[in-house]
Amino acid sequence: MARYKLIVEYEGTPFVGWQRQANGRSVQAAIEEAVLRFTGETVTLKGAGRTDAGVHALGQVAHVDLAREWPTATVRDALNFHLKPEPVVILSAERVGEDFDARFSAVRRHYLYRLSDRRSPQALDAMRVWGVHALLDAEAMHAAAQALVGNHDFTTFRAAECQAKSPVKTLDRLDVTRAGDEIAVRASARSFLHNQVRSMVGTLKRVGEGKWPVGAVAEALAARDRDRCGPVAPAHGLYLVSVDY
Amino acid sequence: MARYKLIVEYEGTPFVGWQRQANGRSVQAAIEEAVLRFTGETVTLKGAGRTDAGVHALGQVAHVDLAREWPTATVRDALNFHLKPEPVVILSAERVGEDFDARFSAVRRHYLYRLSDRRSPQALDAMRVWGVHALLDAEAMHAAAQALVGNHDFTTFRAAECQAKSPVKTLDRLDVTRAGDEIAVRASARSFLHNQVRSMVGTLKRVGEGKWPVGAVAEALAARDRDRCGPVAPAHGLYLVSVDY
Repeated sequence: MARYKLIVEYEGTPFVGWQRQANGRSVQAAIEEAVLRFTGETVTLKGAGRTDAGVHALGQVAHVDLAREWPTATVRDALNFHLKPEPVVILSAERVGEDFDARFSAVRRHYLYRLSDRRSPQALDAMRVWGVHALLDAEAMHAAAQALVGNHDFTTFRAAECQAKSPVKTLDRLDVTRAGDEIAVRASARSFLHNQVRSMVGTLKRVGEGKWPVGAVAEALAARDRDRCGPVAPAHGLYLVSVDY
Repeated sequence: MARYKLIVEYEGTPFVGWQRQANGRSVQAAIEEAVLRFTGETVTLKGAGRTDAGVHALGQVAHVDLAREWPTATVRDALNFHLKPEPVVILSAERVGEDFDARFSAVRRHYLYRLSDRRSPQALDAMRVWGVHALLDAEAMHAAAQALVGNHDFTTFRAAECQAKSPVKTLDRLDVTRAGDEIAVRASARSFLHNQVRSMVGTLKRVGEGKWPVGAVAEALAARDRDRCGPVAPAHGLYLVSVDY
C-alpha cells in the first residue's frame, strides 16, 4: 500500500461540496472515480476540509491509498487526465507515510473570502466573489474582526448542523484588507466550525456597511447565541487556500 | 439626443465576439437589447475594440446615443438590470459630447494576455488563461518582444481577414512578466491589426519554450510574411483591459 498526499484546486460552483453525498456530484466522488479509471481501485479519499456546495479550493489537501507505488508525477497527470472536463485539478501528488492523515494531521487551515463593493455586478467573477450593495468600511471590519482572534467559544458563528464536539476553537488570524473595490478576509486556524468563516464574514459585513458598531462583534461572540450572528455570507466568495502540516 | 460613453466588462466565453453577427450571440447585441428594454429604443452601439469570440474585457469602451438625457447612474444600473444573467456588466456610464467616438477617438488600447506554464491544467481559470505544456522563459520572451515595439509593418502578425488599410502600426509597449506560474503579456498601441496580439503572443511562446531563438522574432517581423508567424494564441487568454482617450 502506498499513501499519497494530493493538493487539489477546484471550482465549487457545480458541486454539492467536497464530501460525497446522495443528492449530487461531489469533488470527492469526482476524484475517486478518476482513481478508479486510473488504477481500477475503489478508494475512499479523505480531505482536510469538507467545503460546502459552491465553495472553491486553491489548495485543498486529501490523501488516498493505492495498492502499488507509482511515480508521483504519474499519479498527478493520470488523475488530471481522468478528471477532465470537471473543474477539479490535482496540483501535486506526494508520497507520504501511513501516519499522514489529510484531516487529522493538519495543523492549520487558511481560508480566503472575497467581497466586492463596486456598484456594478460581476461579469468575470460572478461566482467567485460576493458582490455587496453597500460601500464597506474595511478598516472597521478589520478592527471588529480582532475581537474574534484567539481562543473562544464560537457558538454564535456555528451552523446548527455543525458536528464538532466543542464550539471552542482558536482563531489565529482574521485580517480584512482592501485592494481597489475588492475586500479580502483571510482566516487561519487549526480547525473551524461548520460555516464559521461564512458566519464571521456575514457578521463583519454588517459592520462594514455601518449597520453594526465595531464593538457589536465582540458582544455577539460573548453572547454565545446563534441568533446574534449576522446573515451567513454566500458560499461562492469562499476559498480554501491551503493547509499546513 | 444624448451620447453616453460606457465602460464594459465581459466574459467572452459564451459570445461570438463583440460585434453583432448572424451566427450567434454577441456582446454588442446583448447591450443593444438591454437598451431596448430600458428605453424602448433600437440603437447601434459602437465599441473601441472588436474583440473576437472568447476574448474577455475588463474595460471595453462603447458609445450609444439615447433620445433623452438620463442620470448616468440610471443608465448604468438599468442596463445592468436588463443585462442579467448575461456575463456582461456596465462599469460606468458617462455623458459625452457628439464628437466623442468610442472607436475613432481612442488614442491607446491596452491588452493583457495571460499564460500559465504550471504542469497541471486550470480548474478555476480554465477559460481565463492559456495553459501551455512547456516551461516558459519569460525573460527571453520579453527580450524578443522588444523587437516588435515601435513603428513597423506587422504583416507577419496580421490575420488574413484583417480589414485594416495598412499593416503599419506603432506598438508602444510589449512587456512580458512572470508572477509565480503565470506569465502576463501586456500590449499597448493606438490600434492593433486583427489577431495582432494573439499572433505576437503565439510567436513569443515559441521563444519562451526554447523552440525559437530570441532573434527569430525580429526576423519574422522583418520578413513581412504571415507564414513566419507562430501559431496564433487562443482567444481565452486575452483581455481588453482599457482604452485611453
